[in-house]
Amino acid sequence: MSQHIFGADKFSLDTPVLCIDLDVMESNIEKMARYCREHGVDWRPHSKCHKTPAIAMRQIEAGAIGTTCPKTSEAEVMAQGGVRDILIANMVVGERKLERIAAMRRWADPIVACDHYAQVEPLAAVCRRRGVTVRVLIEVNIGLDRVGIRPGSDTLALAQAIDKLEGVELAGIMGYEGHLLTISDLSEKEEKIRTAMKVLVGCAESIRAAGIACDIVSAGGTGSFHITAQCPGITELQAGGGIFMDPFYRNTCQVKDLEYALTVLATVVSRPQLDRAVLDCGRKTMNPDVHMPVLAGDHDAEVVRLSAEHCELKLGTKSQGLQIGDKVELVVGYGDFTTVLHDEFFGFRKNQLETVWPILGRGKLQ
Amino acid sequence: MSQHIFGADKFSLDTPVLCIDLDVMESNIEKMARYCREHGVDWRPHSKCHKTPAIAMRQIEAGAIGTTCPKTSEAEVMAQGGVRDILIANMVVGERKLERIAAMRRWADPIVACDHYAQVEPLAAVCRRRGVTVRVLIEVNIGLDRVGIRPGSDTLALAQAIDKLEGVELAGIMGYEGHLLTISDLSEKEEKIRTAMKVLVGCAESIRAAGIACDIVSAGGTGSFHITAQCPGITELQAGGGIFMDPFYRNTCQVKDLEYALTVLATVVSRPQLDRAVLDCGRKTMNPDVHMPVLAGDHDAEVVRLSAEHCELKLGTKSQGLQIGDKVELVVGYGDFTTVLHDEFFGFRKNQLETVWPILGRGKLQ
Repeated sequence: MSQHIFGADKFSLDTPVLCIDLDVMESNIEKMARYCREHGVDWRPHSKCHKTPAIAMRQIEAGAIGTTCPKTSEAEVMAQGGVRDILIANMVVGERKLERIAAMRRWADPIVACDHYAQVEPLAAVCRRRGVTVRVLIEVNIGLDRVGIRPGSDTLALAQAIDKLEGVELAGIMGYEGHLLTISDLSEKEEKIRTAMKVLVGCAESIRAAGIACDIVSAGGTGSFHITAQCPGITELQAGGGIFMDPFYRNTCQVKDLEYALTVLATVVSRPQLDRAVLDCGRKTMNPDVHMPVLAGDHDAEVVRLSAEHCELKLGTKSQGLQIGDKVELVVGYGDFTTVLHDEFFGFRKNQLETVWPILGRGKLQ
Repeated sequence: MSQHIFGADKFSLDTPVLCIDLDVMESNIEKMARYCREHGVDWRPHSKCHKTPAIAMRQIEAGAIGTTCPKTSEAEVMAQGGVRDILIANMVVGERKLERIAAMRRWADPIVACDHYAQVEPLAAVCRRRGVTVRVLIEVNIGLDRVGIRPGSDTLALAQAIDKLEGVELAGIMGYEGHLLTISDLSEKEEKIRTAMKVLVGCAESIRAAGIACDIVSAGGTGSFHITAQCPGITELQAGGGIFMDPFYRNTCQVKDLEYALTVLATVVSRPQLDRAVLDCGRKTMNPDVHMPVLAGDHDAEVVRLSAEHCELKLGTKSQGLQIGDKVELVVGYGDFTTVLHDEFFGFRKNQLETVWPILGRGKLQ
């Protein structure tokens, strides 16, 4: 990293390069933290969009209580980077991972999600053997129909079974309203999210009514967090992607008050036609699955095709002066799937290179 | 890597893990090399599917003349790994990359593609300054309409201009029939590929008729190589992905005589319904864009949804005994976009771990 030219102008760098506008990211972090604070919920932002302890620590400085991860090995990266309170919002299965969780417990405080006794019992056994206690959280299916136990008596029965196990401690429950993020009618979206959250909160209440502690009721992605934070009984939000913001969140989920922070700087490498330019970044640099990248600035150009290593722009009349060698900046359509393609974030303030963060959680798939 | 348990049984490993069946890969390499040999064309396999010098060297041992790369930094990885003859089948633009190409010329023999004088002239200037000569190859648009110069007088004029430049040497031309790989009617596919190759070969002939050497006429992806190798005048094939083979090549491109070598081993982490199992690998582990992954073995289960970290299987009656903790192997739908998500290939022979190859070209995006 010592070869990086700190202070360099963004547009002088070789391409493609994954860029964070630090002022914008910090403003987004502050806005999300403030929104949670104002609505009386904790913020445990998902780190899937950045996978970088340096960024998780900025969120914690702004008021986040910890972080959310999808994988054991990502949780380890966060713990190594100084994060203590880490929700692994996924089922952890297999002896080796359970040993890693128990080992991590000595230097961090992970919470592991579960939706079946068959996941919790082996974890409890490993924890007892290692002399530690690990928190667990029940994932409830609130309509996404992916993982999660059925709300109601099934959830209560699992909570009661966990309550009897030594080596684990029930920390609470979680649900994810991922199937409701993209409803275009905003009042319908709000109504459906409120209904889903009532189901989740109802589970917590029935667990508590049975005399079992259920402190955490966790939910909320960036596409829904403004609504979910206002639902009574929700104690914490996992929304994380909003720190980068994306055209997906803005256009598809109608999130308004955050700004774009994550871009790819690219170079025009071919100009085969008057209205076509080709950039040096394709699907191996920017994933277009959830939302196509869009040009930053006021170009009248549009991304029309991405292949492995090529990004094709259709140029309007104002953009047709683009030449081979010119640089173009693209807003990443949806950050999560693009971050994992890169080794480093390049952080800029007013377009000057301020920091390079290795994406330490990239490739941590186990 | 010393912690890897060489000799271990595949199904004893933690998951998810990206697996190569070495016997199958070696057999595919041998079949592709032999096919090229029998049809009198050189084999310069694209390394985009593996990005791993250890595998490129296996291909060269089997008869390949070198390798094909899409990026300068990937070419450097290949050169560092001992590959000498490296086609960068993409336009290279920008002073820093041109300096890297000129530096690489001292210890390898790269060829750089171009489709415009504005790319070649700066390369020639850097090469003259550094006292080296670099080979270039003109990419011709044979119908893919992505990059590439127009065939005919434009191509000839560019060849003549390159011929006058000191610092570069015209090595030949290339074209990619990528738009014809998925034509379902096989006689129509063959006819269209033959027509496209005639256009490409015609360009080579007109360059030679003008007294300029044009030794290389390069084309061919895995989805078309059986046909392209038989087209008169084609001197080398770039087809590379066939060493792993994929359901995309088999089902969509109708390539028959190669076998699946690339899989992801995964674990069942949730069993929310009788007919649904969820695995610990999603889009950040296996990219489903070009073709969904398919189950290896004789399960009556099907991949129906992939989210970032979840792979949902719909289970038939035979598979409904799958339990939390069971391991499942999935054939990667299309290798290229999955390889870049991983740090290492785990190579197995008869399901025993034989080697772990770091994917050294991963993240080399410049």
